[in-house]
Amino acid sequence: MGDFKHLVIAKFKEGVVVDEILKGMEKLVSELDTVKSFEWGQDIESQEMLRQGFTHAFLMTFQKKEDFTAFLGHPSHVEFSATFSAAIEKIVLLDFPAALVKAPA
Amino acid sequence: MGDFKHLVIAKFKEGVVVDEILKGMEKLVSELDTVKSFEWGQDIESQEMLRQGFTHAFLMTFQKKEDFTAFLGHPSHVEFSATFSAAIEKIVLLDFPAALVKAPA
Repeated sequence: MGDFKHLVIAKFKEGVVVDEILKGMEKLVSELDTVKSFEWGQDIESQEMLRQGFTHAFLMTFQKKEDFTAFLGHPSHVEFSATFSAAIEKIVLLDFPAALVKAPA
Repeated sequence: MGDFKHLVIAKFKEGVVVDEILKGMEKLVSELDTVKSFEWGQDIESQEMLRQGFTHAFLMTFQKKEDFTAFLGHPSHVEFSATFSAAIEKIVLLDFPAALVKAPA
C-alpha cells in the first residue's frame, strides 16, 4: 500500500503575504505527526497558458488514508483551513493514493 | 538545492482509456534517466467542488532544473505530449523547485 497524498494548487488574492500563510502551514505540519512529509513550490517555469493563473503547489504525504482523515478533522487543520480559504482566489484540491511508478534511485 | 518538480493535473476526455495513457507515461519515464521519480494518483476523496472536475495528478521529480529542461526537449517527451494533449479535456501544469519542509522520518 502506497502513500496517501493531499495536493493543493492555489492562486492567492492580491495583497496576501504568502510567507505568512506558509509559516502557518509549516507550523501545522510540524505539529501533526499524521503528516509524513510536506513540500511545496512556486511555479517559475511553466507556460502562462498551462498554469492558468495558479502559482503555488502544496503536497502533503500521509502513510495511510486514515492519517489523512485524522489530519482533516484535527482542530489545528480546521483552524488553518479557514485562514487559507480566506487568502485564496482559486484552488484545486486532489486527494489520492499515490502510485509510485519510478522510485528515486 | 532541492528537487525540481513537474506537476500536471488533468481531466481526460470522455472515452479516453486512461490506462493506455498511463502505459505511455510509464514507458516514457522508465526510458529517460533525467526523470528521478514519478508518481501519480486518481482522486478518490476530495469534495467535488474543490476537485473542479480534475481527476488525475501526475508528479515527476528531477534532480535539477536542467534535467527537466532536457526532459521537455527530448523527442520521446515531445511525442508523448502530443498524445497526452489529445486525450485531455482540461489541464493545469506547474513546474517548480520543491521546498521540502517536512521530510519523511
